[in-house]
Amino acid sequence: MPQPIEFFFDFSSPYGYLASRKIDAIGAKHGREVVWRPVLLGAVFKVTGGQPLVQIPIKSDYVARDFVRFARLLGVDFKMPGNFPFSSIHAVRSFWWADSQNPKLAHDLAQHLLNTAFSGKDIASAQAVATAAAEIGIDSAALLAGIESQEVKDRTRAESDAAIARGVFGSPYIVVDGEPFWGADRLDQVEKWLETGGW
Amino acid sequence: MPQPIEFFFDFSSPYGYLASRKIDAIGAKHGREVVWRPVLLGAVFKVTGGQPLVQIPIKSDYVARDFVRFARLLGVDFKMPGNFPFSSIHAVRSFWWADSQNPKLAHDLAQHLLNTAFSGKDIASAQAVATAAAEIGIDSAALLAGIESQEVKDRTRAESDAAIARGVFGSPYIVVDGEPFWGADRLDQVEKWLETGGW
Repeated sequence: MPQPIEFFFDFSSPYGYLASRKIDAIGAKHGREVVWRPVLLGAVFKVTGGQPLVQIPIKSDYVARDFVRFARLLGVDFKMPGNFPFSSIHAVRSFWWADSQNPKLAHDLAQHLLNTAFSGKDIASAQAVATAAAEIGIDSAALLAGIESQEVKDRTRAESDAAIARGVFGSPYIVVDGEPFWGADRLDQVEKWLETGGW
Repeated sequence: MPQPIEFFFDFSSPYGYLASRKIDAIGAKHGREVVWRPVLLGAVFKVTGGQPLVQIPIKSDYVARDFVRFARLLGVDFKMPGNFPFSSIHAVRSFWWADSQNPKLAHDLAQHLLNTAFSGKDIASAQAVATAAAEIGIDSAALLAGIESQEVKDRTRAESDAAIARGVFGSPYIVVDGEPFWGADRLDQVEKWLETGGW
């Protein structure tokens, strides 16, 4: 049984969103399960001294252009959220809350939240997350209560710490058989690694 | 007559080196001249707040692995310089000194200096640059005198400022018909842009 592909992403990462629209198909093509793992890049940046791409002088202009151009190349709908970068803490907590009930539900919620954010809508507040979740049949009241539980908060922190300890420093960060690939622009290399077992 | 491809790179950039080994062939395939333009990322980082990849916690481990893996994928020899990151000011000045005599010579010197650095050797000092230059028939004494001239120093600064003003914030940074592409991992997109005229 081959190992699953691990897909780490931040809900407020445009490149993470782009990869999210391709990674399941790549996994399926190669008979691999894909395990989705949201991370909080804000916590990572405290360790690495990084900052959101769109806040870096000069580079910000480039990446704003690249997001759109790359999305077009991949054939993926893309619109920057009005509020950006946004806090993804409620989105991440909702993921782990859903995951504790049903990993498939957590996956579907994550994809829907990413799609919502990068169709230009807000998913920063707990209420916005709950509203989006309701669109795929998740009970808003249960979600809002769940993400306030200590258990979910602890899980969110533990998973974030574990990801950083694993070396996750950006989004997307994809691990295939122990081999890490950072960036939506590494999807081709991920595919080649899956095809060849490495080079 | 199609516009030349502009290839901006830093002599101390592993990804710039990798791209340098491919960009001329990509240009030739599409009937395009490639104009090489060294930049000083140190000057760029003063504007962007960036820092050398290998000095960033966590990320440094990934990129060290990625340099080697990417080089293997491209079929390019690669060995990290012992002294890294190193100052590339003398290499850049030697480029502009050579360029003032003969742009083709400057190109060949740049490729040789990059190849030298990423075969693990030092090109940080003026003497090391002169020694490497002598290997391709350039007079060491003339180079050492040339890179100390005010004219060459002024050109180096002016070109660096102009590149930053153009939006160059990293290495490699490749411009095709006004369209910028950052990173060795964008070479495929550069090729596609040349083939299709954009998407």
